[in-house]
Amino acid sequence: MTAVEPGHEPRRGPGRRAGESRTREAILDAARRRFGEQGYDGATIRGIAADAGVNPALVHHFYGSKERLFAAAMRLPVVPSELITSVLGAERDRLGDQFRSRIGEILIGTMLRAWDVADIRTAFLGLLRSAATSDHGVVMLREFVTSTIITSLTQVAGLGDDAAGRYRATLVASQVVGLGFARYVLSLEPLASATTEDLAAAIGPTVQRYLTGDIGPAGVSS
Amino acid sequence: MTAVEPGHEPRRGPGRRAGESRTREAILDAARRRFGEQGYDGATIRGIAADAGVNPALVHHFYGSKERLFAAAMRLPVVPSELITSVLGAERDRLGDQFRSRIGEILIGTMLRAWDVADIRTAFLGLLRSAATSDHGVVMLREFVTSTIITSLTQVAGLGDDAAGRYRATLVASQVVGLGFARYVLSLEPLASATTEDLAAAIGPTVQRYLTGDIGPAGVSS
Repeated sequence: MTAVEPGHEPRRGPGRRAGESRTREAILDAARRRFGEQGYDGATIRGIAADAGVNPALVHHFYGSKERLFAAAMRLPVVPSELITSVLGAERDRLGDQFRSRIGEILIGTMLRAWDVADIRTAFLGLLRSAATSDHGVVMLREFVTSTIITSLTQVAGLGDDAAGRYRATLVASQVVGLGFARYVLSLEPLASATTEDLAAAIGPTVQRYLTGDIGPAGVSS
Repeated sequence: MTAVEPGHEPRRGPGRRAGESRTREAILDAARRRFGEQGYDGATIRGIAADAGVNPALVHHFYGSKERLFAAAMRLPVVPSELITSVLGAERDRLGDQFRSRIGEILIGTMLRAWDVADIRTAFLGLLRSAATSDHGVVMLREFVTSTIITSLTQVAGLGDDAAGRYRATLVASQVVGLGFARYVLSLEPLASATTEDLAAAIGPTVQRYLTGDIGPAGVSS
């Protein structure tokens, strides 16, 4: 891919690196503005590139996908759907046939270990905060969660991409978001200082049932 | 109870009513300030009365309890622990022996019907927002939830007031808060437009297990 910034002569050495760093900053600034104003679905790489005064191919070259650009702009230390897909994919390969019956416990354990990383926890809480305080923030987070996390969750759990599958995935999201809120925002004790193992044992079966068990008529795929 | 505002001559007619209304406003202003700065547990009726320049007995006379004063100050249209105790108490009387095995479904149905009331939903979202955005707000909400909602939930569910009982109640809180956040803040579809009956069928068993079922070793009372 040949991606050259318009209006900048290619240079070598530290000057060139500083130029690239400024260009990345301009792209991320434009991305934060567009995602905030237009939501995750409405913002386009083309529009963000135009605001930053660069070629869309350069944005693709630097960030690869809209979700990665979003993660960089929001300073997320991981790309959420890639975390879900890679960790759960590795467990699926390891456990084989047992994977599907243990996905709830594995998912909660994965979330808790991710939140143990301070940067990930800070980013997660920042997104919750922006959703709780601004109408733009809530649209952005809703669309981001729906387009990336819910979609990768239905795929990795082998759910149909229909209303019933997405209903199951949003039930999981409700318990996961609530766990994060109760443990890290409200710090409700004794849940806040419970071990990862205890919480995976308590909450894993909830997620398991939401994904694969009986949740009433609305969970039956047509 | 004889409660007279110091510095005010008792009057009759509209003037007296206007005076009472101003006094109530002064008490609620002082309460909002004290709850915000000192948290729910730290703020005292005595301190709030002093700030408002009235006798503590008058605050008791007007509001009856610290929780009711908090509810009035935060413009909550219901007193949360009274809602839990009254609705679940009525169901317990109605269902007798069956109550304990259906408490999860009843609790989720009660929460969803309460949130259907616009004023209650607005107040709930306001508390979540203040917890997500301010350190004072989070302390206030944590202590309020712990002192009132968790306590009334352990009582009505017949849990012990020990670490295991409170762990069960905080697990319930994590799912209930997450349901509210996913349904009313994020509006994640299709969960956001699911019926009360579908959600009670899907999430009721979660709450039931957290309160009365097997949740691993940390749920066993000593």
